[in-house]
Amino acid sequence: MTAKRLGIVGLGLIGGSLALALKGKRGAPEVWGCDRREEPLRLARKAGAIARACTETEVAACDIVMVCVPVVRSVGLIRRIGRRMQPGSVLTDVGSVKTKIVRAGQESMADGAEFIGGHPIAGTENAGFAAADPSLFRGRTSIITPEKGNTEKAMKRVEALWRLTGARMLRMDPATHDHVFAYVSHLPHAVAYALVHSVATLDSRRVPLGYSAGGFRDFTRIASSNPEMWKDIVLQNRTEVLRATAHYRKNFTMLEGLIRRGDEKGLLAYFRTSKRTRDAL
Amino acid sequence: MTAKRLGIVGLGLIGGSLALALKGKRGAPEVWGCDRREEPLRLARKAGAIARACTETEVAACDIVMVCVPVVRSVGLIRRIGRRMQPGSVLTDVGSVKTKIVRAGQESMADGAEFIGGHPIAGTENAGFAAADPSLFRGRTSIITPEKGNTEKAMKRVEALWRLTGARMLRMDPATHDHVFAYVSHLPHAVAYALVHSVATLDSRRVPLGYSAGGFRDFTRIASSNPEMWKDIVLQNRTEVLRATAHYRKNFTMLEGLIRRGDEKGLLAYFRTSKRTRDAL
Repeated sequence: MTAKRLGIVGLGLIGGSLALALKGKRGAPEVWGCDRREEPLRLARKAGAIARACTETEVAACDIVMVCVPVVRSVGLIRRIGRRMQPGSVLTDVGSVKTKIVRAGQESMADGAEFIGGHPIAGTENAGFAAADPSLFRGRTSIITPEKGNTEKAMKRVEALWRLTGARMLRMDPATHDHVFAYVSHLPHAVAYALVHSVATLDSRRVPLGYSAGGFRDFTRIASSNPEMWKDIVLQNRTEVLRATAHYRKNFTMLEGLIRRGDEKGLLAYFRTSKRTRDAL
Repeated sequence: MTAKRLGIVGLGLIGGSLALALKGKRGAPEVWGCDRREEPLRLARKAGAIARACTETEVAACDIVMVCVPVVRSVGLIRRIGRRMQPGSVLTDVGSVKTKIVRAGQESMADGAEFIGGHPIAGTENAGFAAADPSLFRGRTSIITPEKGNTEKAMKRVEALWRLTGARMLRMDPATHDHVFAYVSHLPHAVAYALVHSVATLDSRRVPLGYSAGGFRDFTRIASSNPEMWKDIVLQNRTEVLRATAHYRKNFTMLEGLIRRGDEKGLLAYFRTSKRTRDAL
């Protein structure tokens, strides 16, 4: 079921962790690595994570090619590699926004090759091969977002690969994926960035945060995420993100109204609804 | 410097943890406990946390009385106990909103007795004596919010008591306290409650949160806080909370505008400002 040869394009945190997770695993494919920078290739070879370094053209000869670059660069790479893929092979990716990428993939594939979008829900605030960790995906959920044209065989092949890393698999159509992640990931990041931005624009002499901010620090941890990456994510998923932010803003304004009017009963009902939903997660 | 006898009114999580933290400590005062319910008194006696249970009238005979009840009940209790306190004694509290409580305290004290507001920054999602923990305050910051009339001697006495629990002390005027905590605590709670409320009012068939919500669950942990308590906190600090929410809403709307206009440069600057502020905490 699994591939004989996997090409990983982009040996950063995700690509590097995938290569390390497969290293020495029974049934794992041979791994080829491709990166426009020399350093991650050197580190990956040294760690025994890849069998060989290859070019973007050469990587299209693998049974599975996994594109592990920032979302903003994925579309171009997928178009270039997709048209060179062999019949029976699968091109996939790890981007956290799916609709646009899947459309590009579907449009660009060579005859007999398939594109299947993917999104392993794992990551840290760190980046680069130096931060790669073979256990990054263990016990985490990895999503694939197949479309009508995809065969069960190709889906199973991508899933088998992720399962070797210890991930649980889930299938979801690309539009649902982007809707769900607008709420559970992109909106929370927007909220955290805006919260810290409010504090950043205050007079710091009146708000000495240093000592009192234990809970605040934990709550706003995700506002320390990579600004370049998050700029690209919110823009790639702009429509769904703006729908989610508008819905959230309505809920926030409703809460402000309850506080302004001193509506004890309304506040209690509002907080209870939230607590019940949160406790059920 | 420390008191000979401490009266704790309300043996819940905070009052109970304070009693347990002082138990057997060198230099600790004798602890009397007061609670309108029988169960926490029984548990506290059984745990050896209090020397005796006493009434609201009797507790006013202690050198220090610490009111550890929900903020909404503090004002009434402070007025009743304050007027019965002995000359040279100190009444204090642990409420997370200070301006109103301190005003009530200043107005109600018997001649020669002092009121000093307090706020230990510690707590968990759990409540009641059963959740009390002698190490709850260790390494945490505990704030006192003295006003002009307070003597250095009385402040030092309250501080010495908290230091026995392992807390670091900080002094802040009540208005600054309420301004700072509107931003670092009350606003984040409002934001988290509103975020979960948005998700709660979605069609759950389209947003199956269960599997994907690891990060979301961590981020929204504070939306599992006690609804009754948080209703009272946001209302007691209404003016500062509404100032903070308006400022935050402006920052959030600004971010939405950047996303809507696809302003890459603006988004990057916005996220970088937040990251820099967060990383500096």
